[in-house]
Amino acid sequence: MRLLFLGDLVGRSGRTAVIGQLPGLVEQYRLDFVVVNGENSASGFGITEAILQDVVDAGADVVTTGNHVWDQRDTLVYIERQDRLLRPVNFPSGTPGRGANLFTARNGAQVLVANVMGRVFMESLDDPFAAIDNVVNDCPLGQVADAILIDVHAEATSEKQALGHFLDGRVSVVVGTHTHVPTADHQILPGGTAYQSDAGMCGDYDSVLGMEKDEPVQRFQRKIPGGRFTPALGESTICGLAVETDDRTGLATQVAPLRIGGRLDQVVPHFWS
Amino acid sequence: MRLLFLGDLVGRSGRTAVIGQLPGLVEQYRLDFVVVNGENSASGFGITEAILQDVVDAGADVVTTGNHVWDQRDTLVYIERQDRLLRPVNFPSGTPGRGANLFTARNGAQVLVANVMGRVFMESLDDPFAAIDNVVNDCPLGQVADAILIDVHAEATSEKQALGHFLDGRVSVVVGTHTHVPTADHQILPGGTAYQSDAGMCGDYDSVLGMEKDEPVQRFQRKIPGGRFTPALGESTICGLAVETDDRTGLATQVAPLRIGGRLDQVVPHFWS
Amino acid sequence: MRLLFLGDLVGRSGRTAVIGQLPGLVEQYRLDFVVVNGENSASGFGITEAILQDVVDAGADVVTTGNHVWDQRDTLVYIERQDRLLRPVNFPSGTPGRGANLFTARNGAQVLVANVMGRVFMESLDDPFAAIDNVVNDCPLGQVADAILIDVHAEATSEKQALGHFLDGRVSVVVGTHTHVPTADHQILPGGTAYQSDAGMCGDYDSVLGMEKDEPVQRFQRKIPGGRFTPALGESTICGLAVETDDRTGLATQVAPLRIGGRLDQVVPHFWS
Amino acid sequence: MRLLFLGDLVGRSGRTAVIGQLPGLVEQYRLDFVVVNGENSASGFGITEAILQDVVDAGADVVTTGNHVWDQRDTLVYIERQDRLLRPVNFPSGTPGRGANLFTARNGAQVLVANVMGRVFMESLDDPFAAIDNVVNDCPLGQVADAILIDVHAEATSEKQALGHFLDGRVSVVVGTHTHVPTADHQILPGGTAYQSDAGMCGDYDSVLGMEKDEPVQRFQRKIPGGRFTPALGESTICGLAVETDDRTGLATQVAPLRIGGRLDQVVPHFWS
Ligand SMILES: [Fe+2]
Ligand SMILES: [Fe+2]
Ligand SMILES: [Fe+2]
Ligand SMILES: [Fe+2]
Ligand SMILES: [Fe+2]
Ligand SMILES: [Fe+2]
Ligand SMILES: [Fe+2]
Ligand SMILES: [Fe+2]
Repeated sequence: MRLLFLGDLVGRSGRTAVIGQLPGLVEQYRLDFVVVNGENSASGFGITEAILQDVVDAGADVVTTGNHVWDQRDTLVYIERQDRLLRPVNFPSGTPGRGANLFTARNGAQVLVANVMGRVFMESLDDPFAAIDNVVNDCPLGQVADAILIDVHAEATSEKQALGHFLDGRVSVVVGTHTHVPTADHQILPGGTAYQSDAGMCGDYDSVLGMEKDEPVQRFQRKIPGGRFTPALGESTICGLAVETDDRTGLATQVAPLRIGGRLDQVVPHFWS
Repeated sequence: MRLLFLGDLVGRSGRTAVIGQLPGLVEQYRLDFVVVNGENSASGFGITEAILQDVVDAGADVVTTGNHVWDQRDTLVYIERQDRLLRPVNFPSGTPGRGANLFTARNGAQVLVANVMGRVFMESLDDPFAAIDNVVNDCPLGQVADAILIDVHAEATSEKQALGHFLDGRVSVVVGTHTHVPTADHQILPGGTAYQSDAGMCGDYDSVLGMEKDEPVQRFQRKIPGGRFTPALGESTICGLAVETDDRTGLATQVAPLRIGGRLDQVVPHFWS
Repeated sequence: MRLLFLGDLVGRSGRTAVIGQLPGLVEQYRLDFVVVNGENSASGFGITEAILQDVVDAGADVVTTGNHVWDQRDTLVYIERQDRLLRPVNFPSGTPGRGANLFTARNGAQVLVANVMGRVFMESLDDPFAAIDNVVNDCPLGQVADAILIDVHAEATSEKQALGHFLDGRVSVVVGTHTHVPTADHQILPGGTAYQSDAGMCGDYDSVLGMEKDEPVQRFQRKIPGGRFTPALGESTICGLAVETDDRTGLATQVAPLRIGGRLDQVVPHFWS
Repeated sequence: MRLLFLGDLVGRSGRTAVIGQLPGLVEQYRLDFVVVNGENSASGFGITEAILQDVVDAGADVVTTGNHVWDQRDTLVYIERQDRLLRPVNFPSGTPGRGANLFTARNGAQVLVANVMGRVFMESLDDPFAAIDNVVNDCPLGQVADAILIDVHAEATSEKQALGHFLDGRVSVVVGTHTHVPTADHQILPGGTAYQSDAGMCGDYDSVLGMEKDEPVQRFQRKIPGGRFTPALGESTICGLAVETDDRTGLATQVAPLRIGGRLDQVVPHFWS
């Protein structure tokens, strides 16, 4: 089956690009299942229920998040009724919402999606290795799940790669988010899992992490809080990872990046043609 | 002029690839100037004088480093006599070696190369913005220097991007290292500076940061020191950034990644043909 | 009953002081139960089985540790047969040794001791709040345990204080370690738990954390690894916390610091007379 | 001469205690010079010009700060006209205000006060060792300055101790702030400098860092932002360090803590009687 993952959608520019173009991508390329990381979609900070609905209406089967998940405070409430919104699975037990769930794809396949946060240089959450191990053991690939996608929201490439190898052969895709920069290390690991350290953001790449660049550049130099961080308004590059899985094993057979619009080199997966 | 930068060369696999293939690349593509980050070339930790010599003999005009620069202890001594080896410029004053220098390229051009370390999630060195500002002001592009390349050895994409924008229009290239993963965000910034958040390592990409994967994967889970970290032995992907500069202004006219060998997608800059 | 806790014992100087004087303290002041943090007792790094035995022979009922627990590699093996040695309870499940245990005091009372590590500015272990909550719920004060002492090995005063309040009224003592500096905030919290942010080390206070000062002072300035860190050799101050508990409730009735020898102000708990 | 330093004044409770009692302390004990850290005096976050004036009117000759210095945004403006307010000296050059200054004490003596921030587990500012070295070299003890007091606003005891030893014999007092907990390691270092790792806050010690405890205790457990942090309202303990200096050399002859009011053990320096 054909999976697409899109990285952190940042602000109005990212929303416009994804909401505007995702329906066409789903139709043109017959995408079976789409996951979008939405943690920065509301002015760069969190996601509102209205934006979530727009992203889902545009074709996202699941919206994942990360450290910014609670930036919009009513997310703690509405996440309980929004099955398609995931927060990192390794928050403490008792946290509202869920970190993993089984979804039905357009082709009828059962897809397990989990969102997990790294701990290196980040908040001290529960062990991401143990948390994902539980999730995957409860819903094995090729048995309960026809495909499994893990969004690893993490800073350090070491931790992302270690999670990739830890899960290799047990899931279809391990794809990173959070750095807001796409990496060019997409590959199928020896055990059959598609891997990319970071999908990159869907945002304006003439910026700092998708935010207007002047304020962060100033702050790095002056070490004094100045104005507010606001999303950059230039055209977004839609950044994501495309994976083709084997319908029987659930493992990856093809992997390639997607980059459309904005400043970055344009690329559409060759196996989508 | 034609510049090539290669990211962190890791262990024997990385050395074999770079030392074996760089001479051919320099000749075939008529490269004017080559910079290689060598901080992990000696079994993953630092660089010896013999390895430095081998890399220079293979065609590197300059070897940059990073947080691992002093892992081989005699580097503190031999760096004083090795003009082609740079350590981060923002070490405290009095640190052996130098962090920036002017070099003569094969085409006779004067190239300023500087190595600087970020501070986010890293050691607390001197301000990288102020340090590089001084270096560049002392040797302006298009006046003293025909080209300027900055190796930003840093963890956080935010800090790398901010340095890129800070230097945009004043240097030819800002290229990141340290994460050991190539990014796909290479572009020419609005002011004319070529930028890539990370060049990626020259190492085996079936690994954790170029090191054999079992030990780091174990350590993330068990939180107990086990065996030693040793470089992975699989074939390396040579990862780098190619930049074409305008001979008059010193600004970038072309930018593209280079990836040869190993597991990653292969790419040679189209403008090298 | 009368409890004494001694903070991180550093190197030969700390060992000499504690092993030499603890037997006399136990006898003179009729101490019912003694806990010593031993994570730095072997040349500043970890603890050997021989040193553990010496400290136990001197009168320690339990030896706690912290981030340095595995610095002596055979600790992973011998900890399994040494019931009196605790490692932080919030290491991943499957870690050798134990993080909490019930012990019989000289007066026959049952004392629960647990060792837990903070996560702020430290290694990402399991949640210390949840881990200690489990330990204390399994062995309630005044029912299963006559007294409960928690060694919170942590950097940040915020996390230590939060753990203190979290446990207030449910344990006899929450005492911090790891900063190697005694704090003067000992008090009985509103719920009846004795609290001190850090007991301080048993080591030479003309030093940096008990280590000979020249090397660390140099390293802060030069940012270059130099010589090795070795324990300072001056006379140690034995630093600890004395707590008197109510035999019925197990809560604290008295709390005061102990400081004997070396450079710091000398103090013996007034209620020991 | 007789110096008093008071640690981080937190919120209304801390202000009430210090502003109410400092005039009496100055008079009763004939204090020559008083420095107060005021970084948390405005509802826990920064300091307003009105509060600064109140603290100065109560007897503070100098008010130091730390990482919270800019929490009240107009501080960036009014600090330029307020000579008695210091911000950390190792902010980047060009930062408003000053980090060190020479003041005239009640006894006519010239007192140099400097405020410096550590970098371990904190913001990446300029090198605190180099910054303070410059300050002290420009204004040597026993020549230009009759006494020198350094407020080291830092998290790690290692960095504070290293700065103490680095300055030992060249300044009268090195006293730490920021952890909001008084340490019991006050001593005169071998070279004659009075040292204490942290003076402790002037705030309510039934709290987390002086803030009402429920919200931080919840946040540590739940990892979700909840309500706001507000200062605890219980009676403050005034916490500080008293130092007697030799009028000729400027070095310390006596050092002792001061703790008045609130929950902590009460102590007034014996040499004040
Ligand atoms: Fe994000
Ligand atoms: Fe994020
Ligand atoms: Fe590296
Ligand atoms: Fe590095
Ligand atoms: Fe320790
Ligand atoms: Fe420790
Ligand atoms: Fe403070
Ligand atoms: Fe502070």
